[in-house]
Amino acid sequence: MSSSASTTATTSKTINAQANALWQKQPKANAEFFALTYGALVAELVRDLEQNSEIQAELDRMGHSIGIRFIEEVLAKAPELKVSQQFMETVDVVKVAMKLFLGVTVEIVTSADDQYIVKMNENPLMVFVELPEDRQDLQYNQLLAGMLRGMLEMLQFDCDVSISSSTTTGNKEIYELKVVLKQVLQGGAGEEYQEE
Amino acid sequence: MSSSASTTATTSKTINAQANALWQKQPKANAEFFALTYGALVAELVRDLEQNSEIQAELDRMGHSIGIRFIEEVLAKAPELKVSQQFMETVDVVKVAMKLFLGVTVEIVTSADDQYIVKMNENPLMVFVELPEDRQDLQYNQLLAGMLRGMLEMLQFDCDVSISSSTTTGNKEIYELKVVLKQVLQGGAGEEYQEE
Repeated sequence: MSSSASTTATTSKTINAQANALWQKQPKANAEFFALTYGALVAELVRDLEQNSEIQAELDRMGHSIGIRFIEEVLAKAPELKVSQQFMETVDVVKVAMKLFLGVTVEIVTSADDQYIVKMNENPLMVFVELPEDRQDLQYNQLLAGMLRGMLEMLQFDCDVSISSSTTTGNKEIYELKVVLKQVLQGGAGEEYQEE
Repeated sequence: MSSSASTTATTSKTINAQANALWQKQPKANAEFFALTYGALVAELVRDLEQNSEIQAELDRMGHSIGIRFIEEVLAKAPELKVSQQFMETVDVVKVAMKLFLGVTVEIVTSADDQYIVKMNENPLMVFVELPEDRQDLQYNQLLAGMLRGMLEMLQFDCDVSISSSTTTGNKEIYELKVVLKQVLQGGAGEEYQEE
């Protein structure tokens, strides 16, 4: 599998501009209402499930089914996005998707042919959120990881997606989604597709 | 308690324009992502609770706490909205709030001094939603009723808020929130306030 990271870099501005244009046209909701509703969902899971790992698994599952649904919309709205057998081509899809669904411009850092890190400088789900003392370790944003996983799966890339956040010296939180390709699935996005 | 419905009618356009301006400035999320996340929340409640009445009570409770939070924001963003001891003055607050939090321009119909109906021609929570056969009676949007109830409570008006939807001949669904004043609470919004 060869990387198309260099191509991605040169078209990065075009992709962001395109994603911005799509975002403008998207029907909108209030970001704070969304964040509070998401908070209510997490709180509901916290009430029902004991372990953080169980709560995260549930959020991941929900995100996954949302991602499966969303990828079709991304490809329908941005038909010029090409995703064939190149895992690295998903970088552009992810950029557009994150803008389209979260309104967030992400930066993607690639280090190897089979993985990349999606960096988010802002996270609309985290507005208003203060995790209680005993839930500081909860990956509150696991839904996003599941969403990305679902989208990539539909593009025939079975991936591990994990989320982490780090606070920079400026007290600004950066959310990172680490995507690692596990395997390329059979029956690819296009007819020409073959597992490598 | 005297109605200020006539005043409301004359200032209606101004209020809508003002609400639109506030909505433009509001941080936005993708309405479809919001709708799917809300759907996940309802699905989670359906999984845990047997009866529609229990699910609705839970949605109502969540909406109530969101409403309590939101009303402060409405009043902070639109300080010219006046709410003293007049229940009918809440009509303007509701118009602004529904635009600000749902992006929806509502029509409010008043029939008596102690009640009104909030008509929504669109409902961003309902995008993509198809209730399963056995949940056709579920008031899926009960969160909105709770939200309105919470907001009004903070304005010292203890109200019943119920939601219904009706399909017009044009197959367009209209959502109606019926607000009925139960009692005016002690310790009103302003110092001058007295229970009537």
